[in-house]
Amino acid sequence: MPAITSSPDHHWQHAHQWPVRVYYEDTDAGGVVFYANYLKFMERGRTEWLRALRISQQNLALTQGIVFVVSQLDMQYKMSARLDDALMIETLVTYAGRASINFAQRILREHDIIAQGNIRVGCVDVSSMRPTALPFNVRDQISTLHTR
Amino acid sequence: MPAITSSPDHHWQHAHQWPVRVYYEDTDAGGVVFYANYLKFMERGRTEWLRALRISQQNLALTQGIVFVVSQLDMQYKMSARLDDALMIETLVTYAGRASINFAQRILREHDIIAQGNIRVGCVDVSSMRPTALPFNVRDQISTLHTR
Amino acid sequence: MPAITSSPDHHWQHAHQWPVRVYYEDTDAGGVVFYANYLKFMERGRTEWLRALRISQQNLALTQGIVFVVSQLDMQYKMSARLDDALMIETLVTYAGRASINFAQRILREHDIIAQGNIRVGCVDVSSMRPTALPFNVRDQISTLHTR
Amino acid sequence: MPAITSSPDHHWQHAHQWPVRVYYEDTDAGGVVFYANYLKFMERGRTEWLRALRISQQNLALTQGIVFVVSQLDMQYKMSARLDDALMIETLVTYAGRASINFAQRILREHDIIAQGNIRVGCVDVSSMRPTALPFNVRDQISTLHTR
Repeated sequence: MPAITSSPDHHWQHAHQWPVRVYYEDTDAGGVVFYANYLKFMERGRTEWLRALRISQQNLALTQGIVFVVSQLDMQYKMSARLDDALMIETLVTYAGRASINFAQRILREHDIIAQGNIRVGCVDVSSMRPTALPFNVRDQISTLHTR
Repeated sequence: MPAITSSPDHHWQHAHQWPVRVYYEDTDAGGVVFYANYLKFMERGRTEWLRALRISQQNLALTQGIVFVVSQLDMQYKMSARLDDALMIETLVTYAGRASINFAQRILREHDIIAQGNIRVGCVDVSSMRPTALPFNVRDQISTLHTR
Repeated sequence: MPAITSSPDHHWQHAHQWPVRVYYEDTDAGGVVFYANYLKFMERGRTEWLRALRISQQNLALTQGIVFVVSQLDMQYKMSARLDDALMIETLVTYAGRASINFAQRILREHDIIAQGNIRVGCVDVSSMRPTALPFNVRDQISTLHTR
Repeated sequence: MPAITSSPDHHWQHAHQWPVRVYYEDTDAGGVVFYANYLKFMERGRTEWLRALRISQQNLALTQGIVFVVSQLDMQYKMSARLDDALMIETLVTYAGRASINFAQRILREHDIIAQGNIRVGCVDVSSMRPTALPFNVRDQISTLHTR
């Protein structure tokens, strides 16, 4: 797998943060959060990061026929989250290209890192399912973020 | 809630049967199948009943702009299913109208009834989200079923 | 199904409220929230109602070996929720017995009722999976609620 | 992330195969399978691989207090699976250590690779949540597999 991980010294202090509570629906018979469900939490984090930039995916799909699709990811699971845990999802853009964005994301419970990963998301035309350029306002907002 | 339950003496011996295995994804921290996930199993049962009638929901949506939506249901949970359980989903049409179908469904583990319920499904035009008549072939197939 | 619905004039103005956002994970290829996922939202509502009473299900399970299990429910689906929708889950106790609680719940999008249902939850000893009395503090809190 | 990928020339002709059907529950409003749900399919594949070795995870947990937990994974998403698709999950052990197993897995639709990934699973004592040696019969079965 081509490395999508950037250097380990991500600037987490600039990360977007989104709280997530663990409910029964997220857990499994092992008593912990089911491993695939952390990806749901991370998708919520990316969605809320977009929303904080005033970008609605529903809107993008309806007005511009553009959807984001995950093309690649890696995950490291370090500890287990459990029912009732209050987690924090941290989201950081590590690279933004013409038609894709790389994110680093962490799932924290207070100061413990529960899991972390890197996700590459491509921008796709919904009718052809082919890569298409990120909408201008998304690129603008991201570049603004990164020159701050 | 208007009663959608028909008489208790359903002809279960004529029910469509579909086996379902319980995986970690289906369970929760209580060690049993999460209550909402039985509705996934039942949707699989209804889908496979349709497929047995040579009806593909993907096809209906793409070629006729028709989707099925659940408008009403009731459920009784009697026992708990657990990881690795081999379940059987039983599906029976109890009523078929112009634009809706009522199903009775049971979830069995060998001779034990784990859960059972009644589900009313409406036929909807995907662009207007308004009720529309069931496709002819669906109605034909159902009436054939019931005169057997 | 034995009726668990109480009179239609529920005192919704006293309902516990919990906001829920619709993410991709909640939707299906029909473009709307998958019918079983509303039950996840409602379980979140009941859990947060309990938490507001300072009751943690994780705690109850670990210290008293007590879990809540759904024994019965009915649902009416009136409209479809979609990606990015901001929903409100309303939760009301309609009856509290020795070993069970009945809830009425509604899912709203602003003033529209998306879905509503009635859920009976039993209190179960986790080792025997048999009904057991609600913990005293839960019963106390509920009776306090209802005499207010 | 430490590489868990072995050489690209995996012996897929020896892979364990498990068919999976795509239902509404698996899809999202983008019209395709939600990216986290492929991990559910892959967990089913690993579970059925174990079952084919006559190993039940429910049994391992109850009798030996041993559970498998995913510690690391990477995924590449190449195409989108859709409602009604008949997929094949291919599962291959690429490395077996004292307390962990590495898998390579692919999700196919006929001859198309929908997604593929590498998953490292650790063997954990359920009371301490610490790494513990794989059960003897699991190690035996795996080594038998690999000397065939």
